[in-house]
Amino acid sequence: MTASIASSSYGKACVHLVKVERGPERDQFKDVTVEVRLAGAFEAVYRDGDNSGLLSTDAMTNAVYALGRRRSLDPPEGFAEALARDLMEACPSARRAHVSLAVRTWEPLAAGGVSYPRAFARAGAELRTACATVEEGRVVVEAGLEGAPLVRTAGSSFRGFLRGRYGTLQETDDRLLATDVFARWRYGRTPLDPCVSFGAVRTALLQTFASHPSESLQHTLYAMGEAAFAACADVEAIRLALPNLHHLLVDLAPFGLDNPNQVFVPSREPRGVVEAELTRS
Amino acid sequence: MTASIASSSYGKACVHLVKVERGPERDQFKDVTVEVRLAGAFEAVYRDGDNSGLLSTDAMTNAVYALGRRRSLDPPEGFAEALARDLMEACPSARRAHVSLAVRTWEPLAAGGVSYPRAFARAGAELRTACATVEEGRVVVEAGLEGAPLVRTAGSSFRGFLRGRYGTLQETDDRLLATDVFARWRYGRTPLDPCVSFGAVRTALLQTFASHPSESLQHTLYAMGEAAFAACADVEAIRLALPNLHHLLVDLAPFGLDNPNQVFVPSREPRGVVEAELTRS
Amino acid sequence: MTASIASSSYGKACVHLVKVERGPERDQFKDVTVEVRLAGAFEAVYRDGDNSGLLSTDAMTNAVYALGRRRSLDPPEGFAEALARDLMEACPSARRAHVSLAVRTWEPLAAGGVSYPRAFARAGAELRTACATVEEGRVVVEAGLEGAPLVRTAGSSFRGFLRGRYGTLQETDDRLLATDVFARWRYGRTPLDPCVSFGAVRTALLQTFASHPSESLQHTLYAMGEAAFAACADVEAIRLALPNLHHLLVDLAPFGLDNPNQVFVPSREPRGVVEAELTRS
Amino acid sequence: MTASIASSSYGKACVHLVKVERGPERDQFKDVTVEVRLAGAFEAVYRDGDNSGLLSTDAMTNAVYALGRRRSLDPPEGFAEALARDLMEACPSARRAHVSLAVRTWEPLAAGGVSYPRAFARAGAELRTACATVEEGRVVVEAGLEGAPLVRTAGSSFRGFLRGRYGTLQETDDRLLATDVFARWRYGRTPLDPCVSFGAVRTALLQTFASHPSESLQHTLYAMGEAAFAACADVEAIRLALPNLHHLLVDLAPFGLDNPNQVFVPSREPRGVVEAELTRS
Repeated sequence: MTASIASSSYGKACVHLVKVERGPERDQFKDVTVEVRLAGAFEAVYRDGDNSGLLSTDAMTNAVYALGRRRSLDPPEGFAEALARDLMEACPSARRAHVSLAVRTWEPLAAGGVSYPRAFARAGAELRTACATVEEGRVVVEAGLEGAPLVRTAGSSFRGFLRGRYGTLQETDDRLLATDVFARWRYGRTPLDPCVSFGAVRTALLQTFASHPSESLQHTLYAMGEAAFAACADVEAIRLALPNLHHLLVDLAPFGLDNPNQVFVPSREPRGVVEAELTRS
Repeated sequence: MTASIASSSYGKACVHLVKVERGPERDQFKDVTVEVRLAGAFEAVYRDGDNSGLLSTDAMTNAVYALGRRRSLDPPEGFAEALARDLMEACPSARRAHVSLAVRTWEPLAAGGVSYPRAFARAGAELRTACATVEEGRVVVEAGLEGAPLVRTAGSSFRGFLRGRYGTLQETDDRLLATDVFARWRYGRTPLDPCVSFGAVRTALLQTFASHPSESLQHTLYAMGEAAFAACADVEAIRLALPNLHHLLVDLAPFGLDNPNQVFVPSREPRGVVEAELTRS
Repeated sequence: MTASIASSSYGKACVHLVKVERGPERDQFKDVTVEVRLAGAFEAVYRDGDNSGLLSTDAMTNAVYALGRRRSLDPPEGFAEALARDLMEACPSARRAHVSLAVRTWEPLAAGGVSYPRAFARAGAELRTACATVEEGRVVVEAGLEGAPLVRTAGSSFRGFLRGRYGTLQETDDRLLATDVFARWRYGRTPLDPCVSFGAVRTALLQTFASHPSESLQHTLYAMGEAAFAACADVEAIRLALPNLHHLLVDLAPFGLDNPNQVFVPSREPRGVVEAELTRS
Repeated sequence: MTASIASSSYGKACVHLVKVERGPERDQFKDVTVEVRLAGAFEAVYRDGDNSGLLSTDAMTNAVYALGRRRSLDPPEGFAEALARDLMEACPSARRAHVSLAVRTWEPLAAGGVSYPRAFARAGAELRTACATVEEGRVVVEAGLEGAPLVRTAGSSFRGFLRGRYGTLQETDDRLLATDVFARWRYGRTPLDPCVSFGAVRTALLQTFASHPSESLQHTLYAMGEAAFAACADVEAIRLALPNLHHLLVDLAPFGLDNPNQVFVPSREPRGVVEAELTRS
């Protein structure tokens, strides 16, 4: 044996579950993808092929479905924690269970001023995420959002930066700023109402993106983090990743046209990346 | 020469254009992808490598950008027609120009009860499409939508079908019906206000999907087409493609649980396909 | 009833099937995705919700699996035809059955000079396609390939084209030419050995792409079609679609460097499109 | 200020570079995507919007292109290290530069027994990766591969596992084992010839996957890691992630057919996940 296991985990990803919560007046349509991971004393599995302590991953999939029947998918943080505890119980060799949910939102289909109680449309690409990690009886809960493309058409500058030998970018007082928000925050204690906390943090993040006098994407990222801390006292840390999705102003001069910050080509490659983890001081 | 050219076209795809229409109170953010195609007397290009009648495709790309500066992107049908006419003029060998637009919708970013006038969020995955085909001086205009995931939780049955030797599906009075609408309709004459016509047809399609007593996806597709014809007198034909995105009821009996039409697993593969072109009788 | 059904079809897409053909010395690993469509006298299904003549699509899926057990997946053209005939038999209302296969290639895993008889690696992204359409007792067979990214670093020019008002592209004797071949050809009569015919046409297409003195992508497309006709007497028509995947020469002059046709940035958007259907004269 | 920056980085992703290395007899076609990240003393950027120490990311993009002109892309580990050192020099506030390359392989186009010296085809989906992290004058080099779909049709069992309350999986002596290898290993010292070391580790990983008597994917992962350590003395740690891409045996009994481990349906969702980091004992 020349190899030590520095860390390992196993589990099931992309467990996709849809639940229709049927009501007398209207239904609700819930759509969630679950990932579960166990870590612990599994050395014999890796080294010796001894599976006696290894919970099969099909049991994890079925645990998701069964829990989906037995309890509400709301709040997703609660579902994640309950599932993590189920898995710890089912697998004595596990020392840690990590469950993460990605929730897609469907809204009652509305068209022509009518809202239908049993038909639904996807509300957008944004995912609400919720994670629970259970270890030694304690739980750490995280929440987040991702897949939220946002744009600002004013109030964003980028000046006074370092160019080095290869920089050719011009300074600008008014650039088009586009990103796709990834945010995940950790609660110091599980919030009383996770949906209220999620909503408060989400609002803080979006409002700050929309209105912050931005000197750079880093500058705005930091302000978003501060706003999240201010919006919810239970948030103790937040990770934010904000790609800089460049939009290039088209040069129309060859065609005798000006272009006063109006016509842009979105550039798919390359893109800027800005990521940080902030903690409450 | 052993090969005859039965048909051919060339052009540029994925010309992505963003336009900020700046206003004193608020901006508008327009986001469109354009595809252009020319067809005509290009045999010498193919057979002899003689490019003298061939408009370069970079000229098409630039024509999109320049037209984007000179006129509004609204309505997209009008932009498509204007661009098609520009291309015909630029390329005498062309007999037909086809332009199609796919419009992504961005809405003013709203969070916490505040709507921001110069920040925007993607409104969902749905695309509005608009096409113009110019040939011998005449134009044919089409409009459509795609990328609209919809679900019904009641009012959909599937009974009395043929099973053949291999069918194992059970009849059902109440299946979960999920699709992703593709629709494209042709106007007999260009509508006075393409945005009004688009809205009327879209509403008719969605309302019918939401409320039609469905015996099959084919049955509902036909009703959607009839509703489109009723909603807009200028529509003379419509193509609809409705994939059947199956959701499998999970068998929870092995775990001592029932499952009264509540917990489903969406199946990504395979999927049903139903497509038809309907014309006004 | 205001709607006439101008055309329609229904069926099942993305029926994914893997077959292990086990041998004493080595196995073979076959991987194919099947799409099936029926068209015919289904008006009552669409208009009246009468499903009595409608073969359920789950029966189509199962027919694929069962046929996969009963016969070889080679040649795919033969599998497609057999499946189309099975479906016609199962559904008397059908007037036409269309089956298309996309075959992924896996090769015995080879590493360090050893080839393993029961381990396999994907051979590349290229798909071999095969279609059969059965109508009124007759069959039309098509074959093709797609997903084949190819590049030429020499022997491709683009000169003497029309610029119009918006063209800014420079003429070039030596451009980097990149595409992703889509080809589908129709046999006048079903070839005796479809794998031999496929190989002959594929070789002709690739050799021509690699060596044709190219004046344009159209010019090379036509030469590829002629080569296909020359390579296989049974080919009566061929459709080719060759996107022009632009590579932009990077301007390194701001950094005091030349760039003698060496360093390029692939541009994902926009791309040129060239498509044609050629028939044997 | 309520937020502390626990960690942060920024840079540029998806810098796509193609280089034609032209030779008298034949060309070489190199295709690489680069990501660069800087971390360091950037608090003023985040907190105060002071960009004076911030190297613009367009300078990073241009540094990639310029280095691509000045030196060979081979070995990618050397390119990554040289680029990381360039970036450290250009940005005094940076404490760490991390560069990662993903290399796509193109081979001379071969068809009909002919190999063309100036035409190329993608060799498969597999990526070779190379990373260099420069910090306090020292460099850590990693190499890896990803995007390698592999299958075994024999020699893989899964028995004796724990089922818990929800497990329904049957034990098997002979399951179809499919994965998509992600591997990344760290060198204790930069190897003399990184391409030789890469080849040795890659061969060890693939040979072990192909031939290991597998009791589980974990068991095979561990054996792959041991083989990597044995193959290259410079490897001090390796991370492996092996998704379990399930293939379900189709039940053909309803159609009067057996299915002796021949016909499978690949299941896209859910999938098993197994990940570990191994270090040399």
